[in-house]
Amino acid sequence: MTSFSFNIHATDGQARTGTITTVRGDIRTPAFMPVGTVGTVKAMLPESVRDTGADIVLGNTYHLMLRPTAERVARLGGLHRLMNWPRPILTDSGGFQVMSLAQLRKLDETGVSFQSHIDGAKYDLTPERSMEIQALLGSDIHMVLDECTPFPASEAEAESSMELSMRWAKRSKAAFREAPGRALFGIVQGSIHPHLRERSAHALRDIDFPGYAVGGLAVGEGQARMFEVLDFTVPHLPQERPRYLMGVGKPGDIIGAVLRGIDMFDCVLPTRSGRNGQAFTKRGTVNLRNARHTDDPRPLEDGCGCPACRQYSRAYLHHLVKAEEILASMLITWHNLTHYQGLMAGLRQAISAQTLLERASSLQAQYGSGDIEPI
Amino acid sequence: MTSFSFNIHATDGQARTGTITTVRGDIRTPAFMPVGTVGTVKAMLPESVRDTGADIVLGNTYHLMLRPTAERVARLGGLHRLMNWPRPILTDSGGFQVMSLAQLRKLDETGVSFQSHIDGAKYDLTPERSMEIQALLGSDIHMVLDECTPFPASEAEAESSMELSMRWAKRSKAAFREAPGRALFGIVQGSIHPHLRERSAHALRDIDFPGYAVGGLAVGEGQARMFEVLDFTVPHLPQERPRYLMGVGKPGDIIGAVLRGIDMFDCVLPTRSGRNGQAFTKRGTVNLRNARHTDDPRPLEDGCGCPACRQYSRAYLHHLVKAEEILASMLITWHNLTHYQGLMAGLRQAISAQTLLERASSLQAQYGSGDIEPI
Repeated sequence: MTSFSFNIHATDGQARTGTITTVRGDIRTPAFMPVGTVGTVKAMLPESVRDTGADIVLGNTYHLMLRPTAERVARLGGLHRLMNWPRPILTDSGGFQVMSLAQLRKLDETGVSFQSHIDGAKYDLTPERSMEIQALLGSDIHMVLDECTPFPASEAEAESSMELSMRWAKRSKAAFREAPGRALFGIVQGSIHPHLRERSAHALRDIDFPGYAVGGLAVGEGQARMFEVLDFTVPHLPQERPRYLMGVGKPGDIIGAVLRGIDMFDCVLPTRSGRNGQAFTKRGTVNLRNARHTDDPRPLEDGCGCPACRQYSRAYLHHLVKAEEILASMLITWHNLTHYQGLMAGLRQAISAQTLLERASSLQAQYGSGDIEPI
Repeated sequence: MTSFSFNIHATDGQARTGTITTVRGDIRTPAFMPVGTVGTVKAMLPESVRDTGADIVLGNTYHLMLRPTAERVARLGGLHRLMNWPRPILTDSGGFQVMSLAQLRKLDETGVSFQSHIDGAKYDLTPERSMEIQALLGSDIHMVLDECTPFPASEAEAESSMELSMRWAKRSKAAFREAPGRALFGIVQGSIHPHLRERSAHALRDIDFPGYAVGGLAVGEGQARMFEVLDFTVPHLPQERPRYLMGVGKPGDIIGAVLRGIDMFDCVLPTRSGRNGQAFTKRGTVNLRNARHTDDPRPLEDGCGCPACRQYSRAYLHHLVKAEEILASMLITWHNLTHYQGLMAGLRQAISAQTLLERASSLQAQYGSGDIEPI
């Protein structure tokens, strides 16, 4: 059986393109992982997600542990079978959503206690329980339980939070349920402080993970500061292991992070925006709710091969958004995921051809500030 | 260019199977028309609607005249092009929804005035305007404007309402915009009164339509009374023209109406139920919200070829319904439309084989009362 591995095919400056091999298939990097929160990439059939070019999707441990529950997913044959996605799945640890969504949480050395946002039931999440849940879900890449340090945080807060995360990383590794081709990734914390990020990276390398994530970003610090953190963090990560920037992001964020050596991304933006009538195009974001599309017979984006662009007009998409039709969410999500996967394919190609550095600035300019119109 | 025609291939008792030919393709009868209210069969791509076996869909004039408006649909190339459904479309006259949905309507000899349910704007709908709108939409089968007589109604009310509808039918025919292969259907009214239904049928035959609908049913009179009305109405309709029972219905309603000589049906039930977690199966209706499905690994319906049944468990569909995921609406709607089209194909086959009469009662028994579980 193939084990988990990462091969870098080409580099261009700090950027790299390669292949992560898992028992459930290859992941071409840089890779974008659509988010399948509760076992579905919202408004998409899984075969359509694959058609957009996705090699891997993300599942949220927090949501799945509450409903349908990890034990039930396991009884039903695991997450891949349940959601009809036979390819790789990465699950997060549940920590991020517990901190941001759950009520009345209590965090201590052991872990975190919280109440479900669905029915108020009480749960405990520890590194050990997170490893158990992710094994029950059966995902291919597990993430250590960490505390996503809030932003802003004082340096002292950032330090003690990072140190807690490092102790949890060690416990996560010890509790990780090995399986053929399954991998556990560590997560670097340390907020915006270079020496904390460096200490965190080295602590994780001492534990030794097959992949490393950069956590605690995209939480309000802004793109410039995020890039700065990557600039001083990524050099401390091992060259030969995949690097994953969690929860990022806008196309411009992704381009900048790839330039800084990141290999993997996940974000709800293409799917959530799709349900809000927001479309990503090479010329910027388009709000299809806007009245200027009412009579526009043109496709959303020329040359795009997705069903929304091949078969429908902007006027029709506008109409569907205004009428709050499910088909609006289906088509615009499909377009956005196609766009994101096209962006990733273009980045991989540019790295292979060693033209990324010269193309990146014009690419980023196309996207403008990357700020999507207010919803 | 092929003109509109109807050919009956086989009969079995009063039931018939045949083909309606239009310039946009054939319609196999008995036919079920999925409802595409505002230019989309809710939660379905049009190619998926076709995959379920649908030859024709219905568009609602009332909804489309308000948004995106008939004039805009025409500027954008017509309804077929707008919604990417190149096959036949039937549009209703708008009358039924005006009477049931619109606010502050005023009905007189000329037509009906009403306020939009969207923004309160005032509209007039006359037979002439309905014909204009349906021509702008570009549908293949137009319906005359009629008053759907409320139920119950006194015999005097039913009579004057029917007579108004007959005068409007005449005006509709006069205002109908001819086009190659396009047809205008008349609508029989007269509530539950045999002599009114007879007079209405003969009045319409005098005007001469290429197809006849039975209106004013499925409005609360119950299945037994509906069948009774069909029993005394259908014999007054010409044998060689298609007959359309508007707004019907449950599988058991359709089977009974086919036995009484009806060729065409439309109903929101499979699509609306799909969005509410209700599935139609050969063994009755299944409420996927019900907790008994929580751990059920079986497919929704054995032997069904739809994606919901081929690729997912009841447990997963239950989970999607509980989590209010769009994919629940997509999959269950797909199943329901597949089920309805399978029912129609079975009826056509049984008529061809002249086995409908012997099979109908066991078919109806399978469906039970046809009463779907409360939502």
